Amino acid sequence: MTSLHQDSIVIDGLIIAKWGRDVFEDMRKGGLTAANCTVSVWEGFQATVQNIAGMKKMIRENADLLTLVRSTADITRAKAEGKTGIILGFQNAHAIEDHLGYIEAFADMGVRVIQLCYNTQNLVGTGCYERDGGLSDFGREAVAELNRTGIMIDLSHVGAKTSEETILESKKPVCYSHCLPSGLKQHPRNKSDEQLRFIADHGGFVGVTMFAPFLKRGIEATVDDYIEAIDYVINIVGEDTVGIGTDFTQGYGHDFFEWLTHDKGRHRRLTNFGKIVNPEGIRTIGEFPNLTEAMARAGWGEARIRKIMGGNWQRVFGQVWGA
Amino acid sequence: MTSLHQDSIVIDGLIIAKWGRDVFEDMRKGGLTAANCTVSVWEGFQATVQNIAGMKKMIRENADLLTLVRSTADITRAKAEGKTGIILGFQNAHAIEDHLGYIEAFADMGVRVIQLCYNTQNLVGTGCYERDGGLSDFGREAVAELNRTGIMIDLSHVGAKTSEETILESKKPVCYSHCLPSGLKQHPRNKSDEQLRFIADHGGFVGVTMFAPFLKRGIEATVDDYIEAIDYVINIVGEDTVGIGTDFTQGYGHDFFEWLTHDKGRHRRLTNFGKIVNPEGIRTIGEFPNLTEAMARAGWGEARIRKIMGGNWQRVFGQVWGA
Repeated sequence: MTSLHQDSIVIDGLIIAKWGRDVFEDMRKGGLTAANCTVSVWEGFQATVQNIAGMKKMIRENADLLTLVRSTADITRAKAEGKTGIILGFQNAHAIEDHLGYIEAFADMGVRVIQLCYNTQNLVGTGCYERDGGLSDFGREAVAELNRTGIMIDLSHVGAKTSEETILESKKPVCYSHCLPSGLKQHPRNKSDEQLRFIADHGGFVGVTMFAPFLKRGIEATVDDYIEAIDYVINIVGEDTVGIGTDFTQGYGHDFFEWLTHDKGRHRRLTNFGKIVNPEGIRTIGEFPNLTEAMARAGWGEARIRKIMGGNWQRVFGQVWGA
Repeated sequence: MTSLHQDSIVIDGLIIAKWGRDVFEDMRKGGLTAANCTVSVWEGFQATVQNIAGMKKMIRENADLLTLVRSTADITRAKAEGKTGIILGFQNAHAIEDHLGYIEAFADMGVRVIQLCYNTQNLVGTGCYERDGGLSDFGREAVAELNRTGIMIDLSHVGAKTSEETILESKKPVCYSHCLPSGLKQHPRNKSDEQLRFIADHGGFVGVTMFAPFLKRGIEATVDDYIEAIDYVINIVGEDTVGIGTDFTQGYGHDFFEWLTHDKGRHRRLTNFGKIVNPEGIRTIGEFPNLTEAMARAGWGEARIRKIMGGNWQRVFGQVWGA
């Protein structure tokens, strides 16, 4: 591990791994300072509360490796203690069900990132795998409440129209926590140059993912292709509003992807990813230091590397969380 | 009560009264053979099951007046026994939540009418009080399951685009169970001549309401204004696809209307009806015979009166329910 990686704040904007000691150990090995860890996708309110309780129990039981992040100071503290900070995040607002009051309840529990929709329509808006009618009126109320309670709004899997309207509606920065540019590969999940420029022009943030099905070279990609994609995004939005959002699914197998790729975890199929292999050189969370090395290899300066690896995420989280 | 009213099948396509013995006695007084009785609006799955259990208990406890309708034969039987048949209906598909399997569960419980949306967006589509992005993909799956399980789809409070797409998607007749023509008064809840023609041209059905805020003369209206509105609809769609759908809210006061007119019963205000007074001559369910009389006074023949008062509803229910 280079000393640059070792003393940088390293933040992963999106991990949805099969949580357990082996993953947490790999986070340490990879030198992760903090990660937005998904604890809700298709689950309703009650099941999500149970997931959160489960994650908190794991944080207690693995307190030598982990700490809960409620503020950016907690990220700084995690770094100082040599632990990985767990940021609780949702990939769907489904868990707020039909009650805006649940948003504050989740904020109280420590949830700091909520993606508005996951692939399909919900009460708030529509995801990127079906026709998108835009942000609903209830969605506008939800955005105001997410702003008030200091929860970062994520639009990665949200449809183009709902995303645009949310960017305009939100009083605080919003993000695509994990996306790739459609300029490198056309895909319903990828964002056009125009979309990337639009979110950045409105104070928003872009985390770049490396999920193979959305990369130009698919499962043939290496960590250098990932750098190319990040570079592409930086060239559009500038180096101050870009971060990492790997979308690591470490530990999960076929059944989990079947659940993810069917509406509500059980109904019609939305997509089929085929074989999923992370780019060579960053196949596992533990290989995170290779990312910093690849950036240096690409000729990036230290300041840029530090920003992209985590500095930018920490700053924008502070703007939204208020601490 | 005229003998015509007395020996007709009289069906009310929509009542949302405060259920209790006094309302049931008034149904008997009014000579109602059957009514689509709302047991869910903003409630989720569990609360709706509880409402259904509550209604079934009331049917048992008032068995001298009531009987549960599961088939059109039950309507014929209710008539023969001098009872009012209770058809269990929802004004919102919210109660199916995120599980299509709940539809068959509700069908098993006896639910025979489900309105897809109530005024706002849900997982299925969008209601008539906000911008309408159309029937969602989950909504298309829901329509297929409602068709399969023999539940009548109601579109009264549904947005124009979701309604049109549902009419095209459904393999069985769908209805506006309680609506008024915007040709007589412009209102987001009223249907244009084109919309009325469209549903009828595709085998659908129109129940005409008398809810004062949507009537041309508002709270000044009499039963004769109601006849005028029914006549208007008949002139567009023909006398074989029209029925009654009063929208009686008997027994309810201010708090109930506050609940109805706020999204999900608790969030932003959607509309404000002002004073609600049913048309003179048909202020209460017990005055139902005055409707038959007003039809005769308007010069309608016996055959038409029998169709509009219930014959048409019974036929179209049979087409959807399969029995």
